[in-house]
Amino acid sequence: MSLYQYSVLQMSSMLRNIDGCLDKAIAFAEAKEFSADDFAGFRLAPDMRPLSFQIQAACDAAKFAGARLAGVEAPSNPDTETTMAELKARIATTLEFLKGLDERAVDGGAEREVRMSFLPGMGIRGADYLRQMAVPNFYFHVTTAYALLRAAGVGVGKRDFITDLALFPVAD
Amino acid sequence: MSLYQYSVLQMSSMLRNIDGCLDKAIAFAEAKEFSADDFAGFRLAPDMRPLSFQIQAACDAAKFAGARLAGVEAPSNPDTETTMAELKARIATTLEFLKGLDERAVDGGAEREVRMSFLPGMGIRGADYLRQMAVPNFYFHVTTAYALLRAAGVGVGKRDFITDLALFPVAD
Repeated sequence: MSLYQYSVLQMSSMLRNIDGCLDKAIAFAEAKEFSADDFAGFRLAPDMRPLSFQIQAACDAAKFAGARLAGVEAPSNPDTETTMAELKARIATTLEFLKGLDERAVDGGAEREVRMSFLPGMGIRGADYLRQMAVPNFYFHVTTAYALLRAAGVGVGKRDFITDLALFPVAD
Repeated sequence: MSLYQYSVLQMSSMLRNIDGCLDKAIAFAEAKEFSADDFAGFRLAPDMRPLSFQIQAACDAAKFAGARLAGVEAPSNPDTETTMAELKARIATTLEFLKGLDERAVDGGAEREVRMSFLPGMGIRGADYLRQMAVPNFYFHVTTAYALLRAAGVGVGKRDFITDLALFPVAD
């Protein structure tokens, strides 16, 4: 079991899945003849954050997980996306950053002291950070993005969310 | 980094968190003077599954993750819950089962061959199963349960969803 697999590889896989959900939303909007970019502002409730934020937050959760475990600086992304093309580009940028991380550096991050700006004066072990913070927060935002599209009528299903199973044939 | 921590411990923590969200929903219903059990049938969209299913599916995802990694039989739970008290009892039963699993057996499950009834003739390594299937599926259902309550007006927030951080004080 490797930190790299649980952070960089798995989050990259999930980001590609949610990117595929955005593609389905774009096709849905085309078929229904409305602007797909309207999706960027959709919310599950008036006082919840819109799709654009959910994608930005998922991308940041993945970016920070990889960077903090590897012990490198995460690039800054200013959260300016308002169109589906821009949200897809944000995902692509994040995937590119994750791909560039050194696998051994990430795998070596279990005991690394991680700090988060919103928790001043506190630290957390890398492995605890991944399990208790980064993974729940990442899935929170990708699932909310998915649910938002699903509730809006886009034909996404569990098979768009869970993919890439390393299955092998077995005898019964 | 341990499979036990990433499955049994973390999923137990999240189940306690979603149980706390159910408590907030019950208090919300009391304050608004409607039956909290109505929540069990709430959905994010007419063709999505209700809260009761989301809780049942989250409990099953956690139960199967622990059982399959440990190489033991998972108990059967017939998905009959229709009230908040029953859903809280389902969570408690699942937590009790997870607590009874042997830590070393779960930690020894990385190379165990896992089979799932809906994928006949196929197997998957325990560590791949946890990362690619059990964890995404678990968070999918706990997040959907959370989002459902949140969209219905219950005052839950990210601090009800992410808890139990193993923080320690650090010098600046």
